[in-house]
Amino acid sequence: MIDVAIIGDGYTAADLLRLMAGHEQLNPVFIASIDHVGRKIHEIYPHLRGFSDLLCEEEDLNKIKSCCQAVFLAIPHGFSVPIVRELSGAGIRCVDLAADFRLKDPTLYQEYYDLKHQAPELLPGAVYGLPEIYREQIRKADILANPGCFPTGAILPLAPLLAAGMVERDHIIIDAKTGVSGAGRGPSLINHFCEVNDGVRAYGVGTHRHGPEMEQELTFAAGDQVKVCFTPHLIPMSRGILTTIYARLAPGVDASGVRTVLEENYRQEPFIRILSPGVMPNSKWVYGSNYVDIGVFVDPVSSRVILISALDNLVKGASGQAIQNLNIMLGLEETRGLSTPGMFP
Amino acid sequence: MIDVAIIGDGYTAADLLRLMAGHEQLNPVFIASIDHVGRKIHEIYPHLRGFSDLLCEEEDLNKIKSCCQAVFLAIPHGFSVPIVRELSGAGIRCVDLAADFRLKDPTLYQEYYDLKHQAPELLPGAVYGLPEIYREQIRKADILANPGCFPTGAILPLAPLLAAGMVERDHIIIDAKTGVSGAGRGPSLINHFCEVNDGVRAYGVGTHRHGPEMEQELTFAAGDQVKVCFTPHLIPMSRGILTTIYARLAPGVDASGVRTVLEENYRQEPFIRILSPGVMPNSKWVYGSNYVDIGVFVDPVSSRVILISALDNLVKGASGQAIQNLNIMLGLEETRGLSTPGMFP
Amino acid sequence: MIDVAIIGDGYTAADLLRLMAGHEQLNPVFIASIDHVGRKIHEIYPHLRGFSDLLCEEEDLNKIKSCCQAVFLAIPHGFSVPIVRELSGAGIRCVDLAADFRLKDPTLYQEYYDLKHQAPELLPGAVYGLPEIYREQIRKADILANPGCFPTGAILPLAPLLAAGMVERDHIIIDAKTGVSGAGRGPSLINHFCEVNDGVRAYGVGTHRHGPEMEQELTFAAGDQVKVCFTPHLIPMSRGILTTIYARLAPGVDASGVRTVLEENYRQEPFIRILSPGVMPNSKWVYGSNYVDIGVFVDPVSSRVILISALDNLVKGASGQAIQNLNIMLGLEETRGLSTPGMFP
Amino acid sequence: MIDVAIIGDGYTAADLLRLMAGHEQLNPVFIASIDHVGRKIHEIYPHLRGFSDLLCEEEDLNKIKSCCQAVFLAIPHGFSVPIVRELSGAGIRCVDLAADFRLKDPTLYQEYYDLKHQAPELLPGAVYGLPEIYREQIRKADILANPGCFPTGAILPLAPLLAAGMVERDHIIIDAKTGVSGAGRGPSLINHFCEVNDGVRAYGVGTHRHGPEMEQELTFAAGDQVKVCFTPHLIPMSRGILTTIYARLAPGVDASGVRTVLEENYRQEPFIRILSPGVMPNSKWVYGSNYVDIGVFVDPVSSRVILISALDNLVKGASGQAIQNLNIMLGLEETRGLSTPGMFP
Repeated sequence: MIDVAIIGDGYTAADLLRLMAGHEQLNPVFIASIDHVGRKIHEIYPHLRGFSDLLCEEEDLNKIKSCCQAVFLAIPHGFSVPIVRELSGAGIRCVDLAADFRLKDPTLYQEYYDLKHQAPELLPGAVYGLPEIYREQIRKADILANPGCFPTGAILPLAPLLAAGMVERDHIIIDAKTGVSGAGRGPSLINHFCEVNDGVRAYGVGTHRHGPEMEQELTFAAGDQVKVCFTPHLIPMSRGILTTIYARLAPGVDASGVRTVLEENYRQEPFIRILSPGVMPNSKWVYGSNYVDIGVFVDPVSSRVILISALDNLVKGASGQAIQNLNIMLGLEETRGLSTPGMFP
Repeated sequence: MIDVAIIGDGYTAADLLRLMAGHEQLNPVFIASIDHVGRKIHEIYPHLRGFSDLLCEEEDLNKIKSCCQAVFLAIPHGFSVPIVRELSGAGIRCVDLAADFRLKDPTLYQEYYDLKHQAPELLPGAVYGLPEIYREQIRKADILANPGCFPTGAILPLAPLLAAGMVERDHIIIDAKTGVSGAGRGPSLINHFCEVNDGVRAYGVGTHRHGPEMEQELTFAAGDQVKVCFTPHLIPMSRGILTTIYARLAPGVDASGVRTVLEENYRQEPFIRILSPGVMPNSKWVYGSNYVDIGVFVDPVSSRVILISALDNLVKGASGQAIQNLNIMLGLEETRGLSTPGMFP
Repeated sequence: MIDVAIIGDGYTAADLLRLMAGHEQLNPVFIASIDHVGRKIHEIYPHLRGFSDLLCEEEDLNKIKSCCQAVFLAIPHGFSVPIVRELSGAGIRCVDLAADFRLKDPTLYQEYYDLKHQAPELLPGAVYGLPEIYREQIRKADILANPGCFPTGAILPLAPLLAAGMVERDHIIIDAKTGVSGAGRGPSLINHFCEVNDGVRAYGVGTHRHGPEMEQELTFAAGDQVKVCFTPHLIPMSRGILTTIYARLAPGVDASGVRTVLEENYRQEPFIRILSPGVMPNSKWVYGSNYVDIGVFVDPVSSRVILISALDNLVKGASGQAIQNLNIMLGLEETRGLSTPGMFP
Repeated sequence: MIDVAIIGDGYTAADLLRLMAGHEQLNPVFIASIDHVGRKIHEIYPHLRGFSDLLCEEEDLNKIKSCCQAVFLAIPHGFSVPIVRELSGAGIRCVDLAADFRLKDPTLYQEYYDLKHQAPELLPGAVYGLPEIYREQIRKADILANPGCFPTGAILPLAPLLAAGMVERDHIIIDAKTGVSGAGRGPSLINHFCEVNDGVRAYGVGTHRHGPEMEQELTFAAGDQVKVCFTPHLIPMSRGILTTIYARLAPGVDASGVRTVLEENYRQEPFIRILSPGVMPNSKWVYGSNYVDIGVFVDPVSSRVILISALDNLVKGASGQAIQNLNIMLGLEETRGLSTPGMFP
């Protein structure tokens, strides 16, 4: 058993605990909270009653260093940097679910997160945690930057096609539809039931922080600058992201070529399912699971491909991917704790 | 046109404005806010764009006295008392949507609302605003205590049967299911989308403040002490309350007797619909409207009657009833501004 | 009072009745049903209890001819043609909410609806019922083709910009998110609660029938062939469509130019609201109303405009627009019966 | 590995497969369908892609006899009897998720299910599958009558209290709130999204088939005739049942007595969680899991106890309990395949 700590008590922390309840090798022994110190975590999250008896404690890095081999940081951006610096320096494997180590360029971080990065010297060594792309680097990572939920849904369908030169690098439109848990557990008008229920709206149009993260990784994949137009929409559901991607085919590329590249690229991947022709994903099919379902439609007349991906923002978009990454970092079976189907209906 | 003020900027204030948009005789000219002073109300509630150009202002009782004939208080309990004292003293008709003037007994108010009532001398003159019971008193009211949403749904089916001695005064169970807007617009974990969506729970079991309000009015109706067991449940919908009432029939009472009393009692009422035998109400049928639908089932074997009522908590449970009451107080047509069907689907 | 008939008993028929309940000049006197002949419409739709006492009857064109001046056809495509031929021939004003008279080209109709059009000779005279574009023609129309819900949401933001040459005619992406009522009341796996709730999916990718309808009207507006890529998504809400449109700006066009064209074009329109800069629409703000809210975002770097519109698919996307059209056809005030704000929350 | 068959392809069949995906000893090898013969089950339920490659086949009892040791019947009532007669006669362990073997009295079955029971001679041997009550009998059962979802939620809190004589046998009110999946996957107006969303209604008032099933088991527990008043309500959620039970305390019984009986009775039970004083269950806390959470409130003034239970109707209310029962019947570890927490949010 490998003892791990969780810093944070929001929805991603809760889903780490839910998933580790079925993981025989990761043992959560410490959870740091701000608002709930002294209470059992199952009082805060009663669905975990019988699964975790952990007490919420104040953040205590010395204690984590003395009792844990790895730590999940499930806190807002900006707070991870000092913790990661100290813990990774002490040999603790750090998986940061926040955004502090995702962008390689600290000026971009400053521009989009309104914060000067406090440890830019750590950025080159941090590994971007998309196992389907960076598995080898993840094995040796000390600092793991767990990807954003939207980038995960956008990069996985696009990266192989950009790498193969099958779609054009400009004119990429990414229209995402997300559930409300992505906005966190802190109450606000944004996640108020009555403001969300039975309606839909866009937000962060043209300015969302996940845009540059997508562009960074898609540019790496393409080997040349990629620009995307990313628009997220909030819809009345708890979990899930459906990402509809519109891209133009490179000259001479057809439907079967696109499909072949995706299928071959992901044939061995345990959590990617390329759906059959004519089938488009439904976010409910991956609800609670670590899967990404990808549907493909090519319109030969307009030379356009529509890629649609579905994932659970709290699992493959956050806590599930974090566990997948830590499994790889620790040399465990990569799918450990994650081999459950989505919950439908 | 009669100029009116609204104090408060929550959901009930918004629904007052929505309903008055279709009311040709009430003209909202002032709205007091705490958080949004200086902003147009249609910036806070964009569905009202084109219908109200009011600017949110600081509470200013002198201004209200100088420009309005009536005021709606759509604020939390405890804040209404000093305002009502001053404005009603100046001849402004006051409709209080909060709880400050509902309970005739100030010690009960103190017990349930944790506040000493600051103007108990006004309580005898305040009229409880259920037009179906107190229409004559409402005509002459200066201070109108608009009923709670749950009491409205419980009293309307029960009061005529208790008054007629057709159901027993004890053993009354009231199991209510409410939408989330009843919890107000202020963000909290209680109305967080992810905490409510796709689930159901009870709250305030045995302690909800609307219990004594029901008992007060049902006792008046019965002419003798009535005790109820009231349990509200929160369900994933924006508007609506369905109230399921279990009561025991008095000896000798049968189904047709119960139905006859309800139908005759409410025959002339513009907003009460007694449903046909075998039909039970759906809260969506009254969504956005001022109607109360009531279904009746009598089990002769167990001598029990099940009464089910449906209403919209923001309309007949708050703002619609408030307008109905003010219509009566001002001698306007009672249904003015309220004659719209529910929105279905 | 003008006596009108409704053919059909689905959700659009119900919303016609709901809206006419507040319309003092249109009087529904006949409703044709297949499944519910002999039952009161308020038994099928209890929210209409007290508002309509109509009995569902078998379709009887002679009766309609003898008692009505106008008819709404709220039936599936393919069924309208023979009815419209007969009734319009008899001088009855026909408003067809189905698709039979929308496409000017009968071969396109055949391709997308899998039916040979039975009265192509009537197509030239039928008027496409978008009042914001065809108001003058609608005044004289005998046969009114009420637009599809998706085309309404796509054409209104785009047409003025295409007409002014401000956006390019290719590369137009239309990503729509719709509520479930658009799929009708007939039960199917598509509208089963558990198949829709808490999830999202795309459907009809690349093949939806509303694509050619959009292209027809946008081509008319642009004066040259327009091609769109249209992808609808089903989301868990009852009413509403949010349409996100991605288009490329013509050379030299900037944000203020786009905004000016839209604002000036729609300044006089009673049901179009161009939102302020930085504000994007929410379908709940127009819930139950005849409004279309339009938000605009221009990204000067990529020379792209994002237009987002919100409407209620059953109102401005169907029954409300049908009443607006009939108001115009009959010389009534255009907004009659439609001047209510959206219902929020 | 024990090879099992599933007869039926509805939601309970799908949840059997979902749960068995995490069960290392039960191996589904056959699934009988009517509508989908020849298709892979993961085409019908794409969330199972990668977990089950089973082909839907026609019902073939000989094949089941030759290849399976146990069978789950996940079909409508009335169809199980002949299948169970044949398969149990051949030594196949039968777990019937339908209602055919629940009621010991065939005349009651005929009254409530409108069918003459075709094998009343099998009823005495069939075991009612509530492990918390009948674990010893289940070990030896050949025919297992899996309980109804509502009875499970009502019996578990009440039976120990009735057995201990702590609550009175009459005046028991059971007010249940259920999600929509209980109505099955077959499309109907009852489970149409728009008929359910954002509303609530009661159904089957006074006539629901689960009433006599509750009374049978509660009478066994009490040792004397128990009568209940059972009213189910349909609310807008996919999974889950919250059951609010109102009962009168026997003379001299107090809150701590009630709590002690429940806690002691269920201390060893792996799937029952008695919540702490003041905590009431939320159906979302048990979403997708086999748990039953029970909250207790005693009002000493009125001598009434309110018991509230939460379960997932498809798991502890159907497929999870079926697997729990089969685990017991086969001598496997009882919790195998079922040790996962609920999914929240």
